[in-house]
Amino acid sequence: MSSKSYIVVTGGAGYIGSHTVVELIYHGYNVIAIDNLCNSSYEAIARIEFLVRKSVLFYNIDLRDEKQLSHIFSSYNVQGVLHFSALKAVGESTKIPLDYYDNNIYGSITLLRVMNKHNIKTIVFSSSATVYGDATRFENMIPIPENCPNEPTNPYGKTKYVIENLIKDLQKSDPTWRGAILRYFNPIGAHPSGLIGEDPLNVPNNLLPFLAQVAIGRREKLYVFGNDYESHDGTPIRDYIHVVDLAKGHIAALEYMNSLESDVGLYREWNLGTGKGSTVFDIVNAFSQASGKELPYEIVGRRDGDVLNLTADPSRAKKELNWIATMTVEQACRDLWKWTTENPFGFRVDNYHWKVFNKSQTVDYKNRLHTVKFPDLQVSFANYGALIQDVQYKGQPLVVGFQEFQAYTSDSNPLFGSTVGRYANRISNGSFQIEGKTYELDKNQSGSTLHGGNNAYNRQYFLGPVSKHYQDYNTLEFILLDEDGNNGFPAEVETLVKYTVNNNSIEIEYQSSITENSPNDATAISLTNHSYWNLSSNKTIDGTVFRLASDKYLKTDPKTQLPSGEIISSNEPLTKSVKLSPDVSFDNCFVVDESDFSLDTRKRELKQIAEVSHPSNSIKLSVTSTDPAFQFYTGDNISMDPIKPRAGFCVEAGRYVNAINHASWSKQVLVHKGEVYGSKLKFTFSS
Amino acid sequence: MSSKSYIVVTGGAGYIGSHTVVELIYHGYNVIAIDNLCNSSYEAIARIEFLVRKSVLFYNIDLRDEKQLSHIFSSYNVQGVLHFSALKAVGESTKIPLDYYDNNIYGSITLLRVMNKHNIKTIVFSSSATVYGDATRFENMIPIPENCPNEPTNPYGKTKYVIENLIKDLQKSDPTWRGAILRYFNPIGAHPSGLIGEDPLNVPNNLLPFLAQVAIGRREKLYVFGNDYESHDGTPIRDYIHVVDLAKGHIAALEYMNSLESDVGLYREWNLGTGKGSTVFDIVNAFSQASGKELPYEIVGRRDGDVLNLTADPSRAKKELNWIATMTVEQACRDLWKWTTENPFGFRVDNYHWKVFNKSQTVDYKNRLHTVKFPDLQVSFANYGALIQDVQYKGQPLVVGFQEFQAYTSDSNPLFGSTVGRYANRISNGSFQIEGKTYELDKNQSGSTLHGGNNAYNRQYFLGPVSKHYQDYNTLEFILLDEDGNNGFPAEVETLVKYTVNNNSIEIEYQSSITENSPNDATAISLTNHSYWNLSSNKTIDGTVFRLASDKYLKTDPKTQLPSGEIISSNEPLTKSVKLSPDVSFDNCFVVDESDFSLDTRKRELKQIAEVSHPSNSIKLSVTSTDPAFQFYTGDNISMDPIKPRAGFCVEAGRYVNAINHASWSKQVLVHKGEVYGSKLKFTFSS
Repeated sequence: MSSKSYIVVTGGAGYIGSHTVVELIYHGYNVIAIDNLCNSSYEAIARIEFLVRKSVLFYNIDLRDEKQLSHIFSSYNVQGVLHFSALKAVGESTKIPLDYYDNNIYGSITLLRVMNKHNIKTIVFSSSATVYGDATRFENMIPIPENCPNEPTNPYGKTKYVIENLIKDLQKSDPTWRGAILRYFNPIGAHPSGLIGEDPLNVPNNLLPFLAQVAIGRREKLYVFGNDYESHDGTPIRDYIHVVDLAKGHIAALEYMNSLESDVGLYREWNLGTGKGSTVFDIVNAFSQASGKELPYEIVGRRDGDVLNLTADPSRAKKELNWIATMTVEQACRDLWKWTTENPFGFRVDNYHWKVFNKSQTVDYKNRLHTVKFPDLQVSFANYGALIQDVQYKGQPLVVGFQEFQAYTSDSNPLFGSTVGRYANRISNGSFQIEGKTYELDKNQSGSTLHGGNNAYNRQYFLGPVSKHYQDYNTLEFILLDEDGNNGFPAEVETLVKYTVNNNSIEIEYQSSITENSPNDATAISLTNHSYWNLSSNKTIDGTVFRLASDKYLKTDPKTQLPSGEIISSNEPLTKSVKLSPDVSFDNCFVVDESDFSLDTRKRELKQIAEVSHPSNSIKLSVTSTDPAFQFYTGDNISMDPIKPRAGFCVEAGRYVNAINHASWSKQVLVHKGEVYGSKLKFTFSS
Repeated sequence: MSSKSYIVVTGGAGYIGSHTVVELIYHGYNVIAIDNLCNSSYEAIARIEFLVRKSVLFYNIDLRDEKQLSHIFSSYNVQGVLHFSALKAVGESTKIPLDYYDNNIYGSITLLRVMNKHNIKTIVFSSSATVYGDATRFENMIPIPENCPNEPTNPYGKTKYVIENLIKDLQKSDPTWRGAILRYFNPIGAHPSGLIGEDPLNVPNNLLPFLAQVAIGRREKLYVFGNDYESHDGTPIRDYIHVVDLAKGHIAALEYMNSLESDVGLYREWNLGTGKGSTVFDIVNAFSQASGKELPYEIVGRRDGDVLNLTADPSRAKKELNWIATMTVEQACRDLWKWTTENPFGFRVDNYHWKVFNKSQTVDYKNRLHTVKFPDLQVSFANYGALIQDVQYKGQPLVVGFQEFQAYTSDSNPLFGSTVGRYANRISNGSFQIEGKTYELDKNQSGSTLHGGNNAYNRQYFLGPVSKHYQDYNTLEFILLDEDGNNGFPAEVETLVKYTVNNNSIEIEYQSSITENSPNDATAISLTNHSYWNLSSNKTIDGTVFRLASDKYLKTDPKTQLPSGEIISSNEPLTKSVKLSPDVSFDNCFVVDESDFSLDTRKRELKQIAEVSHPSNSIKLSVTSTDPAFQFYTGDNISMDPIKPRAGFCVEAGRYVNAINHASWSKQVLVHKGEVYGSKLKFTFSS
């Protein structure tokens, strides 16, 4: 068992669960998210990881599976549980009540049994204002205080009420239990990052998701159920709370429980609401303003069971948990609109699918293989090294790669398809100086540091990807947080690798910078992609015909392959045409630009650096880049049976080799805190 | 799937469940009882079968085992479900609430899911007045009507309330469902037969079981929780209802639902109570009178949550179900006292255990092997033929029998240990006349009928046993209902075989008569036991030494073995001593009494008919009987490899061979409706 302690979050991939996982991590908790994904997507977890720059343990488990659930509690040092997972649609609950009782109640029974068995007795339960039922049936119960009698009027609300009671009864039977019951009012909005939000699988049940679908054009109009209530505009009043505020309420409850004396148990309900009511039209107006859209609506009759006003009295949470909602309905509408426009179909991404890459006994979500598929072009990427595992254009495979994950971890793997970083190519003597301070790196090749050392980007799992579909392209964004001191490099560095794939090209964008929290303020960064291309159907690249953008290259010491500083020209007609044959080898850094040495080259136009074809077929590859140089390598050192030397060639657009150790070149790669390293390169296919 | 339709009764072995199974059968329903036996005993089912003279399908299944439960609904044509099974102790429920929620709620969820899947949508649910909580908190709610608001105050009551709601929600979601919610007040009493009743495993939670244990001496005194209430004697008032009345309420609910138009659904609650309240002291007095005992008690403080008066308003059930409670508290006390005195430790029987006899895939409860064990004597009995399978005295096996059940069904089995009936030994020409009418029987041996024919008692499963333990002996009572016309015999006959075992003897009592409902009014009955004894450790009885009570025997035709009517005497000194050797064979009907030909000989004293020993050890067998004759048989026709001829001898006390066809003997065996055939025989061991 790990000694690190964890908070288990059930329903961690769901709307409120996912936002709470983010807040937990921001507050320093380690999280294990559990979800059966019956009404959510693993995508939410991948995006959380991307957002918080941390991996999140995830288990696709149904709470009712006692054995699997128990295994988690046996394997980790669990500190407490935030219990979100539930079916939650009021209308649906009246149609399939058995499923609601089974999933919600039995799921909770099993969870509590397993917790009890493992002596984990702290739970924050995701309840709902629905347990009050119609609070207007009593005098002076609006705004609703926690001691308002409970009488839920639908199966969903009843299941919540039963679970509250179960926790109450359990706590009474064993006073060492701690149960915090959080009764949500109307959660709205999304994470301000636009990365996570509510993603209703079917017709949205709630006002704002419905409005958002109207605004984005997925639905024609909003139905307003009654405008003859006694509110300022005739529509009913509810208490809408930003989901991030709500998420923070869970942290407050957890910290409240953690602050109790160790022998003190607890059972306590808290309303999580703003205390401020908004009518349906208030919300329509706010969202109309946020989205800049007119939102068509139709007034229809009142719904059964609807009442005028269900606003929370949140004073108990304020007093006891020191928590109040701070975000406005307007903010929630803006965040929802951002989420909606950036993810018009929620977590569903067209042209994209993923599978687990490493076939081990337990599903290893950090190690997935992501495929983007257009009619002509299909590209697969792995989290490991954010590498390109496969490229198929018009059915023809164009890169060298492995079907089995394990091969990528081999010492003989010459970085097939990998992202190369934190520092591509060689650093002389495995050391460099910044402002007079010398940093000694991993020396992994004849006294030099090659491709960032032994535990470089190609050996790390990137977080994400954030996968999105646009009109005619898809994007995948991976992110890596490379530790200060890793391989000897100073500074914690965050690197984003964004792939943009359309029907005939793969663009790669790199963005890298030192994090705010980094203890060191400067480092050297140089990034590229190490795909080995082969346009033929042969096992060798011989016969491939190139035209390069430059015939100038860095002169190197033949022994160390390190540049002298001198730029020389090739005798061969590289800018015209060169055909590879067994006696024609390259491993040279060609120079495209000798003067414009921006750290971030992304604003520059993509410039063609190589055009490649092979007489055996009609496919052409064009490589373009914003960078001042590229390494052209004919793969002569490949030695990974059955893959032979010259099985693929590389066009590694990037910075000058060993630039960090050449005063005049170093601004290409020397990064200070606050500066951004950036570049783009692109592979375009035609036939 | 059987076309016969069934009512599934969950918790069918429990207190109320078992009484309801009895009423269901009395009302013509076929029953499948399900119970996980966590707080009940299969003994209840065996006794129900004994009581109703019918086998009851029983499955030891936990409702939460969806697969097993589903199998039942797939295998039988189920008409509806009476759902009793639940943990039901209020006090316990506050200590282990998780178990209550899990067992009661999750069990019900699973049941309803399985029912839904199989399109069985009729359920009678065993709820409780506990769902009302403290009904005195409202005005005018005593006596409690069904529309009294619900607010259960303990986990047990909450689970009942949740299940009510689940059924209500389910019925609302699918109006073809029919749910009858029966809210019990305080069930008391036991079946008037004394065969079934309440059997609390731990300290009784309810007043009457507790009182009963005080009366029988298992507990010192009753604690009365408060005598300062505003009742006539200061103790609180409850509505006590006889369990048989309660059971009948379920039939009424079932019939109410069956009377609805086929497309009419239902969700409805009915109180099952008497409408009459009794105080604690009223009950103490009634039970004191019924038991004839002073019942010590101690007044202690009020219990939390107790209130003055919780009496039912049962008018809805009266009006709609046409049901009212008809039995008095006094009757309930008498029945409870009978149950208690006849079963002081409920269904727990010392010196007794059973196991399944036939090792098939599903547990076949009708085919069990029952063992009674005293220090010196251990005897095993099977339901099949109510046979004696094994007798061990001081560790030595004394009868021929099989370990494997299948062997007993073999055609070569010479009725080892079996009860022989309806007519032991031969009937000439396989026919007899009663009042001028001739009955033709199964002719299963050279034109005669031997031992009742092919499908005789030895080939049938007896019901029961009712197993009881007394101070120094145990009894096992088996019963068989032999159909009118079976093997050609007229009249439906009910036969009781009662075994009484103590430390050194096995007594067998037979009682047989024509049932009231029998279409025929007279028949022939002759019963005995066909154990094959062997006192040696050898595979042959040779060397065994006998002393018989008589040397007179029925002269028979050597070919047919049928008696001529003449009684003759042996030349050998049988009443002194005869030693068996290979050339000494017997298969003769010895006559003990030539004149006293009662049909029921049980009032006569047991008379020794044979005394047996074997020189190889010190064990002596004495056979005594109340009957006028006995067949002495040296087993020469045994032919069931590896069991050889003369492996055992039989002393079959009973009536004269073929008595039904000899006018002067026939009153030994001719039974008219209203008459009782009876006899006793006994095997006594010493050493």
